[in-house]
Amino acid sequence: MENENLAAAAAVHRLVDRHETFATAESLTGGLVAATVVEIPGVSAVYRGGFVVYATDLKHTLAGVREDLLAERGPVDPDVAAALAEGARARCGADWGVATTGVAGPDPQDGKPVGLVYVAVAGPAGTEVRELKLEGNRAAIRTESVTRALQLLADCL
Amino acid sequence: MENENLAAAAAVHRLVDRHETFATAESLTGGLVAATVVEIPGVSAVYRGGFVVYATDLKHTLAGVREDLLAERGPVDPDVAAALAEGARARCGADWGVATTGVAGPDPQDGKPVGLVYVAVAGPAGTEVRELKLEGNRAAIRTESVTRALQLLADCL
Repeated sequence: MENENLAAAAAVHRLVDRHETFATAESLTGGLVAATVVEIPGVSAVYRGGFVVYATDLKHTLAGVREDLLAERGPVDPDVAAALAEGARARCGADWGVATTGVAGPDPQDGKPVGLVYVAVAGPAGTEVRELKLEGNRAAIRTESVTRALQLLADCL
Repeated sequence: MENENLAAAAAVHRLVDRHETFATAESLTGGLVAATVVEIPGVSAVYRGGFVVYATDLKHTLAGVREDLLAERGPVDPDVAAALAEGARARCGADWGVATTGVAGPDPQDGKPVGLVYVAVAGPAGTEVRELKLEGNRAAIRTESVTRALQLLADCL
């Protein structure tokens, strides 16, 4: 967990300095962003919690992603990633929302290739999304997605 | 992740056989139950998703734990654990809900000692809660809580 923890610590320390909070909405990482940040000492002052939206319908019912967007584009989509981050921010009452969606493999999903991942961060001034094309097995793709999501949060702060 | 993964695999395989689903609501484990189960091949047929309710108020707003119960007992309580499991089950539309709440340390919380943990499983026939008194550092207490929560789920199936 070395790189994830470095990225998590950078984001958490900046949030502590700013007296701001964050929340998460995770699809392919399935709780691993959350599990990584709660290892950082002092995180309880800045991390509120969030959603694991593994099943597609929960992206709508829990995180508030529009049903028509999910129906039209499927869950692995940049606008879905943005909506997940915005939903985490709004529904958890946080200053910032962090989201992940993508294909961890081993098989392609809805026509999207293994390793295609979107990470998103929603904040007071808007939402940023990054498209990633990752390599490796399920675990490697998940771990790298966690790092990149937390790096994006740190970059936005 | 050896014991957690054994417990997770046991629970997932039984759910696959039964054509039933589960969801999670995690406080002290902060997404680690979810992150553990999504490593199991075939889990997408049975795991729906859930909540990370790290901040106390999210136990009410996301998972539906009664505010008066949280105010009276605090978050580390057997009835709160039960309500979290029931909330995960109901709000994620799953057959089973799994929850964790407790004190990972390093400091006691609301008068509750480090290592006091409640894990709960809600299912079609009711809710079961186990009180744990765990030893070790934050990471050890979290890891053991994940194992015990998934063992309780496997035992209920």
